[in-house]
Order: sequence, then structure tokens, then C-alpha cells
Amino acid sequence: MSKPLILVTNDDGIVAPGIKALVEVAATLGEVVVVAPDSPQSGKGHAITIHEPLRLNKVNPFPGIESWESSGTPVDCVKLAKHVVLKDRNIDLCVSGINHGSNASINIIYSGTMSAAMEAALESIRSIGFSLLDYSFDADFEPAKPYIRKIMGYMLARPFQPGYLLNVNIPKLPSDQLRGLKVCRQADARWIEKMIEGRDPAGRPYYWLSGDFVNNDHQEDTDIWALENGYISIVPSMHDLTNYPAIPTLKDLE
Amino acid sequence: MSKPLILVTNDDGIVAPGIKALVEVAATLGEVVVVAPDSPQSGKGHAITIHEPLRLNKVNPFPGIESWESSGTPVDCVKLAKHVVLKDRNIDLCVSGINHGSNASINIIYSGTMSAAMEAALESIRSIGFSLLDYSFDADFEPAKPYIRKIMGYMLARPFQPGYLLNVNIPKLPSDQLRGLKVCRQADARWIEKMIEGRDPAGRPYYWLSGDFVNNDHQEDTDIWALENGYISIVPSMHDLTNYPAIPTLKDLE
Repeated sequence: MSKPLILVTNDDGIVAPGIKALVEVAATLGEVVVVAPDSPQSGKGHAITIHEPLRLNKVNPFPGIESWESSGTPVDCVKLAKHVVLKDRNIDLCVSGINHGSNASINIIYSGTMSAAMEAALESIRSIGFSLLDYSFDADFEPAKPYIRKIMGYMLARPFQPGYLLNVNIPKLPSDQLRGLKVCRQADARWIEKMIEGRDPAGRPYYWLSGDFVNNDHQEDTDIWALENGYISIVPSMHDLTNYPAIPTLKDLE
Repeated sequence: MSKPLILVTNDDGIVAPGIKALVEVAATLGEVVVVAPDSPQSGKGHAITIHEPLRLNKVNPFPGIESWESSGTPVDCVKLAKHVVLKDRNIDLCVSGINHGSNASINIIYSGTMSAAMEAALESIRSIGFSLLDYSFDADFEPAKPYIRKIMGYMLARPFQPGYLLNVNIPKLPSDQLRGLKVCRQADARWIEKMIEGRDPAGRPYYWLSGDFVNNDHQEDTDIWALENGYISIVPSMHDLTNYPAIPTLKDLE
């Protein structure tokens, strides 16, 4: 049997340590092709580039691994992989990350990492976004690697079905404190934003987004609970944003 | 009773005809404040700006209406409105649009218009995104206006509750062919992408995103069915992307 074809992308850019860790794990399971942004794209959400052309250049950051960098967003990278780089091939799995920082709970909707994964799922490709709860450049991805390999192997062993888009978040813990995997729902948390106001060198005002993550949803079936209790959280995700319970409440509008 | 405070934003930029039409309707129902992007932001999804500061300038495109333009994305505009422009005030309703082009079905996840509306909903503000199925600059927004006014009035008359984030799409039809409002679910349609390849003046390759919208979900409770049959579609939407039915199917991963 031929090796599975695994597409690797991210949103921190192709030189981020997190994608290197993910390439290393993926290479133990299949043939790896990387298509990732040429610059950091955090917070890009499901942005796509429609008013300008995209660049795509072959690069060589990972010895022996076919790699391309693009001027586009993470979602653009998945589209370029599917329709240009791997045009006539079947992609068995797409993995995005490892993100430097959490994409648990509400972070999923701002996340370039998870939007890339969702785009692959829309193309009926099994897809997983991985994030480590450590923003630093020197984050230690080693403790997470065996779990990442297990989840990737699990997905590769099964045919694609809706829901095979996984949002995986990993607590910042040494190996002996990681308690394993937990399948969860997205906690109903949010950001309380602040806009930091300042003045540029010319004296003109600017605003810079900041904020605090606030969670009031402490149930044990949530991703935030899992992460706070030493588990790696796995939330199956989807692209249908319909609020079904609200439909009957609005019928008098018709 | 004081007039309700209505925030207006969009993703086509503050000079687009669609936002002018929305401001005109909103001004008949309350006090209007506009905070919108200074340039087109279509396809920006739920992108936020975190690696650079944002600009915010007072402008005067709509006589008698307080208006600000920002260098940020549509979601940034809502955050600036809430935390800077209208810092100490209660926003009764946020309306986004009128978008030039459809945001029905899967388009919601790429849409700056709907992401701005969702950001307001995350701040517990009643919120509606409006889109007309006509990409042209000269699109005729007049037939839609009475319906837009009705939906805004309906929302203003009710206290906020989850699900009061509405994705409203309007078919391109003259007034006498519009058949009214229909509350729907998001159709499970998708884009079949193409990457148009070309060469720039220096001979280097570029790729430009294109594609066809394909719908295989023809049930009568979908937004696409409503639009194809002359109705204005209203889909209540939400930010929880958990695929609940998939959770039990993954439990053997734990």
C-alpha cells in the first residue's frame, strides 16, 4: 500500500517552530507536502484573497520534504495545495499548526490555523488543527508529539465523514503531567476586549487590540475544562453556523 | 423614550452604495453611528488585526450621521465601535451591509459582512447582516428597503437573546416580484474552486482565486431554496462550531 499523502499548513508562517514539529510527526506516517504562508497570519480567520493575485514559491526549510510558501492566508494555502500543488492527487489528511497559542473555545472563529483545517474539510479531506497553549517562540512541542501522532493515525485509519474536522488543543505541560485525550464541545467563553490607545511618531492616534479571555462555562464536557485539568482537548467542528433552536422563535417574522 | 442607537458597518468599505442604503433605512428607526472600513474588505472572514495598530478617522460621507472609517477589518470596526467610539453607550442594534453579493449558505464563513455582525452578537448586541444578490456597483437597493426596515424593527422590539444574529440575503428582483421573508437554515452548498494561473509583467507566475458555487442541498427549508424562489432568506446564526453528533463517534480516541 502506498503511503498516505499528508498536507501540512499553519498560520504562524513556514519558519515557525510549530510547523517544523508537525512536519516531523507527519513524516513518520506518510508522504508530506507543505504549503504554508510566507509570513505570520495569526487572527486571519477564514480570510481569502480575492482582490489580488497570490504568489507561490518552492522553498526548502525541511530537508527531504516538498515545501511551498505563499503570499496568501492559511485558507488560500489550502486552496493552492488542492488546486495547484497537488492538483491531480488525493490528499488523505490535512494538518494545520502546531499553533503557538490556544485555539480552544471561541478562538476557533478568529483562528487562521482552524480556518485552514476547515477549508480542507470543506474539500472532504480529513483535517486536524493542532495548537499548543504556549505563545513563545521557544515553546516545547516534544511532549505533545506522541499524542499528535496518535490522533493523526486514528484519522488516517478511517474514511472521511462530516465531523472529521478536529480542533485539538494541548496544555503547556511536561510529558508526565499530560493526562491524555478528551473529546469535548467548544466552551462558551469570550474575549473582553480592550483597545490600547497610543500616539505614533507624528502625533496621530492609533488603537491596538488587546483583551482578556473570560470563561463562564465550566462544565466538564468543555474544551476549557479539559485543558485546565491536564487533558488534550479534541472538539469535532463544522461549517454549519445555523442556530437551529432559534428558527421556530423567528417564524412570526415571515 | 430615547431613540435606539444603531451601529452600521460593512465589508465593502464606507464609500460603497450598499452601506449608504443601509444608513438611510437605519436613520428612520434610530440614532445612527457608522464605523466602517476605509477600503474594500470582502472575503476577510473573521480576521482581526493583532500585529499592527489600527487607524480611526472621523469622516462625513452621510450628512448628519456620525461616521468613522478605520484601517481595520470589519470585525476590527465593531471592536473599535464598542470600545472606542461608543465606549460608554449601549448599542441597541448592529447592522452590517448591505453587501454587494450573496452571503447565503457557505459564504457566511468567508464573509466580512457576517463576521462583523457575529462579532457584535458576541458582545450581546442584536445583530443583522444584509446582502443583496447583485455584485454590481449600480445595484438597486430600493426594493429591499421596506423589508430591511421591517426586520430591523422586529429585532429592536425584542430583548437580545442568543440567535439574534441574522444572516439576511435578498434576491435581485424588482419590488413586485419579491415574495416576502422566509426563516431558513444554511444550505449545505460549497465552492468548487479554480486557480487562474497567469504571468506578471516580470514573467513570474501568479494565481488568482476563482470558482463556481455548487448546491446539492435543494430542500425547501434552506436559504438557497428561498432565494431561488423569490423570498428574502433569514438564517439565525451562531458562533458555536461544535459538531455535536460527531462527539460520541470519536469517544474511542480518548
